[in-house]
This record gives sequence, C-alpha cells and structure tokens, in this order.
Amino acid sequence: MKTPQGFIYSAVEVAIKKPGRKDLALICSKTECTMAGMFTLNKVKAAPVLLDMQKIKSGKGNAVIVNSGNANACTGARGMNDAAAMSKAVASALGLKDSMVYVCSTGVIGTPMPIEKIKAKIPELASAANRHSFMDVATAIMTTDTFTKTSHRQITVDGKKITISGMCKGAGMISPNMATMLCFIITDAAIQKNALTAAFKNAIRRSFNRITIDGDMSTNDTALVMANGEAGNDPIALKSPDYPKFEAALSNVAYELSRMIAKDGEGATKLIEIHLKNAKNEKEAEKAAFVIANSMLVKTAFYGNDANWGRIMAALGRSGIALKEDAVDIFINGVKVVSKGLTNGKDGEANKKLRTDEVKLVVDLKLGKNSVKVLTCDFSEDYVKINAEYRT
Amino acid sequence: MKTPQGFIYSAVEVAIKKPGRKDLALICSKTECTMAGMFTLNKVKAAPVLLDMQKIKSGKGNAVIVNSGNANACTGARGMNDAAAMSKAVASALGLKDSMVYVCSTGVIGTPMPIEKIKAKIPELASAANRHSFMDVATAIMTTDTFTKTSHRQITVDGKKITISGMCKGAGMISPNMATMLCFIITDAAIQKNALTAAFKNAIRRSFNRITIDGDMSTNDTALVMANGEAGNDPIALKSPDYPKFEAALSNVAYELSRMIAKDGEGATKLIEIHLKNAKNEKEAEKAAFVIANSMLVKTAFYGNDANWGRIMAALGRSGIALKEDAVDIFINGVKVVSKGLTNGKDGEANKKLRTDEVKLVVDLKLGKNSVKVLTCDFSEDYVKINAEYRT
Repeated sequence: MKTPQGFIYSAVEVAIKKPGRKDLALICSKTECTMAGMFTLNKVKAAPVLLDMQKIKSGKGNAVIVNSGNANACTGARGMNDAAAMSKAVASALGLKDSMVYVCSTGVIGTPMPIEKIKAKIPELASAANRHSFMDVATAIMTTDTFTKTSHRQITVDGKKITISGMCKGAGMISPNMATMLCFIITDAAIQKNALTAAFKNAIRRSFNRITIDGDMSTNDTALVMANGEAGNDPIALKSPDYPKFEAALSNVAYELSRMIAKDGEGATKLIEIHLKNAKNEKEAEKAAFVIANSMLVKTAFYGNDANWGRIMAALGRSGIALKEDAVDIFINGVKVVSKGLTNGKDGEANKKLRTDEVKLVVDLKLGKNSVKVLTCDFSEDYVKINAEYRT
Repeated sequence: MKTPQGFIYSAVEVAIKKPGRKDLALICSKTECTMAGMFTLNKVKAAPVLLDMQKIKSGKGNAVIVNSGNANACTGARGMNDAAAMSKAVASALGLKDSMVYVCSTGVIGTPMPIEKIKAKIPELASAANRHSFMDVATAIMTTDTFTKTSHRQITVDGKKITISGMCKGAGMISPNMATMLCFIITDAAIQKNALTAAFKNAIRRSFNRITIDGDMSTNDTALVMANGEAGNDPIALKSPDYPKFEAALSNVAYELSRMIAKDGEGATKLIEIHLKNAKNEKEAEKAAFVIANSMLVKTAFYGNDANWGRIMAALGRSGIALKEDAVDIFINGVKVVSKGLTNGKDGEANKKLRTDEVKLVVDLKLGKNSVKVLTCDFSEDYVKINAEYRT
C-alpha cells in the first residue's frame, strides 16, 4: 500500500459500541489541503454530515476525525453539539483552526454519542499521530465490513510522482447517492479547488453511486478528498493537460474501493456486475439496472446458483422504463439464456457458470445506445443474521 | 366457509411442475356472470393476463380455469396460443362460448406450458365440476403459500341473502399494483357492470394494492370478481341504497385476503402493519409507508425483535417525501420509541413488545392530515432459502 507524502495517521480504542478494537481514528495532513466532499442525499442527515457540509464550502481542511460504533444520526441538537465538540477537541490538540477539522461517524443510529469518553481520548489520538498507519485507520472505521478496503494509484505530473490513496467502509445500508457510508481519499498532488471538485464528482458518480447492497440509503454517507500539494507539482487546473490523468487515477481508486464494498455486501457470496445495455437513455439504463440489482428475487436466485432469468424480466417490467419484451437478450456469465425475450434452453448451462464468486449479467434492451454498469451482490441468509442481530 | 349459490368447482392433478398435488382448477357459474378484473401493471405481462384483459372488456363471463406451477409468462407467441388453447378446451368441454372463459396461471416464469398434458386433463376437470369444493380450488392455486387463503361475507339486499366469497394465493413477488398474484371473488349478487367494477376497484385499492412482501411485482397478478345474480335481488346499481353495503362487504373480503398474503409472506414470522400518519398528502403517505415496508434493514430488525427505529428514520429520509425530522413520532406496538425525532429511551421495552407475531408500527409525521395503512411482513433466512431453491 503506497501512501502520499505529508499525511499522518492515528487510531485509538474508545469502546464506543463495545470494547476490543480501535474505533476512533484521525487522518491529518502536515500542511493545509485543498478538499472536496460528497454527502448522502438522505433527508435525514447525521450531525457530522451537516457540520462537514458547512465546512467543505471553504474547499480547505487539515484533518478528519472519524469514529465507528455510533452514527450520531437522529440525535438532534445534542448530536450537533457532540460533532462540534469532537472537531474542537481535535483542533485544540493539534493546534489547528476548528474550521480545518472534519468529523465523520458511522454505526448505530439514534443513540447519543458517548462524547465524554471520546473527548477524553482525543489527546492520546493526537499524540499517537506519528506512530500509526493508513491501514490502522482503514481498520478502525470498519463496522460490519469483513475486510479493510484500500486502493492506490501513482501518476507522474511535471516529473513529480503523485500518489492517490483511498480507504472506505461499508457493507450494508448501501444505495446511491452515495453508497460508501465513509470514504477518504488523500493525495499529495497540488490541485486547484475547482479541478479537485470536478474530478471527485466524476469519480464518485461512476463508482460509489453505481453500487447497491440492499437499496437502503445511509444517513451518514460521506466521501472526502484531501490534496496537500506535497508532491511539489504545479497545481493542476481544470484545463491542465494533466487533469485527465489525475481524474482517471482518482476514478480508478474510487472504482476499486466501491467494487470492494459490493463484494463485501453483508452476507454476500458473489459480486454481481449488471451491464444494462442499449437503453433509450442513460437515466433509464441506470433505473432498470438498479431495479434488477435491488430485486430480492434476483439476488436470492443468484445466491442459489439459479439462472432464473424470469425474475430479471419481471424486474425489468416493473422498472417502468421503455421496453420491448421481444427484443431483450440476457447473458449470465457469457451464456445467452434469453434471446429476443424467450428462453434459449440454456438455463442448466448458466446454472453451472453461476458457481463462482463473480457474476457478469448482461441485459441488452436493443432500444437505444445508452449503457451503464451497476455493481451489487447476491443475498444470503447471513444478511438476515447480521441485520437481525446488529444492535445486540 | 359459506359460498354463493350457483357455482361449481373442480381441481385435478396435471403435474405441471411436479407430481403430488392438484394443480389445475376450475370455477364455473351455472349461469352467465357480470365480471370485473384488475391486472398487474408490470410491463412484462403473462399471456393469460393479456388474454383476460381483452375478454374482461365485455364485463361478462362464466368460468375461470387456473393452473399453478407455470406462469406462462415470457413465453411469446407460443404462450398466447397455449392460453387460448386452455380457454377453448374448457369452453368446448362445458358447452360455453370461448369468450366466456378466463385463464389464469401462476408459477415459474419463462418455461413453455406443458399444454398437451393440460389439454388432456380438461375433460376430467369439466366432468368433476360437481364433485369438488371452493376449498379444493383454493388449495390447487397455491405455490409457495403455506396455508389456503379464503374469506367470505353475507349481506341482505331486498330481503335476499347475498354471499361474497374470495380466495387468493401469493407469498412472494408481492408488491403493488397488484399484490395478489391471483384472487378470485365470487358472489350470487345481481349487480350492474359499472357498479361491480367501481366496487371492485375500491376494494382492491385498499387491500391488495397496499401490501408488499419483497417489492417485486409479478407478471401475472390478476383479480377477478364474478357475480351470477342467483340470489335473486334486484340488480344493484351505483346509486342503489344497497351499493355501499355491497362495496363494504366486498372490501372486507378483499382486505382479509390481502392480510393473509402479508401474513404468509415467504419466510415471514410477523405480520407488520405500517400506519403512516399525517403526511402532506395521500401519495406521500403511501410512498413513505412502502419505502419502510420494503426496507430490508427494517424488516430484518423486526425479525430480530430489535426496535431499531434509526432504520425507520433513514428509510423515511430516503423516501423523498416532505419531512420534518424533529417532528416525527414513532410507536412500536404501543411503545413510543421516538418523540420529536429523538429517542425516548424505550427501545428495550419495545424490543420485548416485538416478541409476537403481529406488529403495529405507527409513524406520525405531523405535517398534514393524510394517513395510510400498508401491510408487510418481517424478513427471515427462510425467504432466502425458499427463493434460492425455488426452481430446484
């Protein structure tokens, strides 16, 4: 795992939900960063989301404090005070302006934060910041995740090596927009604010906003990017010849991270890529792909290695998009199971191809020229177990 | 179980999907009926749905043939021919006009009907029509249902006793509009066509269109009502003083049937009634209630006896309706867990109240005056088992 220059990391145990693991973490740049952020579209927004949405307007920042175990959502005025208190305590311990510190929380909704316990640990968090690693933070932000999710890319701009490294967490309550719950991408590139914002928006649109686990949208989804300029390149502008290279690298990091979230979907045994081809327009392609991706009947059939394409047709039919039933072709891991809306007699062959941990589903509507890819996962008994027992 | 005068029933075993049970059934009136029907809004409609939608325009009919084990959906021109062949064979065996016979199918999608096997059994089906009962048909139409679903009401009109009896099937792929998969209601009332149509539309709107199991809409949903007039009352007109009484009785039968479908949701352990109160308008009330009803996180929490109201708030927030977070009250089986958007500290008490097979969830938005009730069920590992193995 390569990481950019000029960032330090820290993680400590507060035992916010329960003891036994580090659950409070810090990412801090040694110098001020250009920043961009994207946030959940859920109308019920967690307190730290509301706080960060205000702060990000400056396009600047220095540090992010993040906790797992408690989402600080649906906590009213007290929640807002608690989020502000976390930010202030970090700013004070690190000698930063309060406006330069962002706060992210993930975990149970509706329970007040154990704010005194958290505040008591912040001096330790700040003083440990030289001793911990990027991976320590990536581990501390996990909730029901079964593995840490990190990715990086390196590019050269002006002869300078630039590193872009990302981490994210999320395995349930995943549906656009956003889908990540929490994602932090850091880079030592020097880049102008509007260029960073544009690149980040495009990267997220094609990655985190095209995955779904369960159709449930979180109250806390936050993605932040920090660029501290330590690589020493000339600041990248929107019109720089190097901008597309930066955007591509950032998009690749975001896509890899989002793919890991889909793969780690709660209870998932298979990653499913839905390639919805040749819809009338992009909006309809996306809509149909998401209806298929969120269909419990489709997801449980894939879990059971059953190429039950009738459920895919039924999902298409209820999606409300323009549809010619007798034009549709469907391929499951390369086997054409449906030709012009009718069975090809190859379900048995496709069932065998489903006995793997990655499924490529292609649905060709043959109506237009717009295609999208959406990532999801299958649905097993374990999703139910995980979510029936989450708070116990 | 009371049944109306002048109807005969039959059920035989064809072994359409597998042997061991009756899977082809007939409901027939001795005299011509006034009829009304409602059908799936899925754009992918099964062949028998397309056939019946044409026939119902006459408002008349005499018999319904119904099979389980095969939906005759996504079967193209051959499917249309097969549905027509079933109708013709019944008409010929019973001496009826083809236009008087309706066809309904339920089961696996995309597999051609074993039409020769079915046709071969139709003479037996027709000749057995005096020997079988309403309950025999209700049993033959089951697929993953765990119990037969029937209901009846009796009212008096013009001093004549009128009976309304209904049956339905459905346990998965249940979401409006319609939710039933198949529902047949028969009555010996004499009633005018437009009065029957209006009463049926209202009855279905408040019942089958307000339940959901998994958000998946079937390709085959069909509800038919047959009124043969054998009770001898003066035909009920829309403006008759007795019309409201008839509509109420019909609505009660439909509501009881739809409630049974929610209770029998695949893998369900609890029936959940969601009472969404005081929304800005009825459309928003319905939208929010359905987003909650279809949230996997809400449904799995209820399964785990966890009053995890944060997931309910998150579902409300992503529903897109007008919402004042700090106005919302939430009650779970009578326990007020959320007051003005914040925890009431009573989750433990509510958890205990969840240890039962019926849950009443009240969400009060305090924004307007529009309220709806939607029925659903919890979500367990067994839904996954049933649907991962459905075709095997």
